[in-house]
Amino acid sequence: MELLEKLNWRYATKRMTGATVPEEKIDHILEAIRLSASSMGLQPYTVFVIENPELRKQIQPAAYNQPQIVESSHILVFAAWDNVSEAQVDAYMAHIAEERGIPVESLAGFRANFGGILSRSAEENFNWTARQTYIALGTALVAAAYEQVDATPMEGFNPSAVDEILGLKEKGLKSVSILALGYRDEANDSLAKAKKVRRTADKLFVKI
Amino acid sequence: MELLEKLNWRYATKRMTGATVPEEKIDHILEAIRLSASSMGLQPYTVFVIENPELRKQIQPAAYNQPQIVESSHILVFAAWDNVSEAQVDAYMAHIAEERGIPVESLAGFRANFGGILSRSAEENFNWTARQTYIALGTALVAAAYEQVDATPMEGFNPSAVDEILGLKEKGLKSVSILALGYRDEANDSLAKAKKVRRTADKLFVKI
Repeated sequence: MELLEKLNWRYATKRMTGATVPEEKIDHILEAIRLSASSMGLQPYTVFVIENPELRKQIQPAAYNQPQIVESSHILVFAAWDNVSEAQVDAYMAHIAEERGIPVESLAGFRANFGGILSRSAEENFNWTARQTYIALGTALVAAAYEQVDATPMEGFNPSAVDEILGLKEKGLKSVSILALGYRDEANDSLAKAKKVRRTADKLFVKI
Repeated sequence: MELLEKLNWRYATKRMTGATVPEEKIDHILEAIRLSASSMGLQPYTVFVIENPELRKQIQPAAYNQPQIVESSHILVFAAWDNVSEAQVDAYMAHIAEERGIPVESLAGFRANFGGILSRSAEENFNWTARQTYIALGTALVAAAYEQVDATPMEGFNPSAVDEILGLKEKGLKSVSILALGYRDEANDSLAKAKKVRRTADKLFVKI
């Protein structure tokens, strides 16, 4: 299976060459993210696609100076909604109705599924929207490997500092993870040749 | 790009035919999960792969009687560690050392990265381990689409009830999501022909 070979090829790249990833490949990765599953299809996040070198340089200290922030071609910042509002759910219903050419009223039953979410605290909802971004992150990692683009998923950054730099608070967003996209620098990355370590199937899975 | 066509083909299947997914395809999906990225490579979860029809029938009421629980071929229950312990981190270090043929002492610097995690509360750590399962879930969704196996990701179940059925508490695990794998029943699934609705790229992405 070609996909598994590519997943074996990928690793969390620690050093990148600075080479630019062709726009077509970036577009394919973004389209995979756009098609990602999310709970009830809400996609409660925005993804910042940052190529601008100055902005990446500004973000680097907020990410413990990890070199991939500037050695990559692009970084993606996955930013989750800080809560879920009636207005956001209504906008989503209107969008479904428009796309499918159906009256929005016909979605009343589906909309009722959001009742529990709308009654939860902002903190609970952010935990949930943050989780949804990880499905998109997982999708992006597979799509990048498929395109043979190296990728480094990062949680090691100061979210408040990144939020501040990108003005996320005003947008009702909070940064959750960063994905650097670029090309591995084999000569300088000690992990480039390291054996991939994963739990064995008999330890990771319980088959019943 | 073949992968994008397959991601367009997939949807959260509401009704399945009960047909069995060939073992080879299940194995490919599980191998993709095994290769999933996770923060620092810890893979802080176990995935239950349930084919047994009686057990799926037992789980169905805990999942609001969703038909895919029994109409699927297999369900995967993603169960995250309820906390992260020194012993688990030590076992991971020993595993890396063994796989790479290096002394475990050489990993002291890497192990130090777990200091913050080990000092957090169980609740904070479960929020984090749960997020990691969503990367694996995202990977599984793409791998299933790649194999042209239908898949339904579910958060709509009672985690405590599922934990009870699978005896997860004693294992230090908590169920987070379920992925039903099978084949769409086009005649009975009203969503099988519905247009896929996703936010447009200009709304989902901010390019800088």
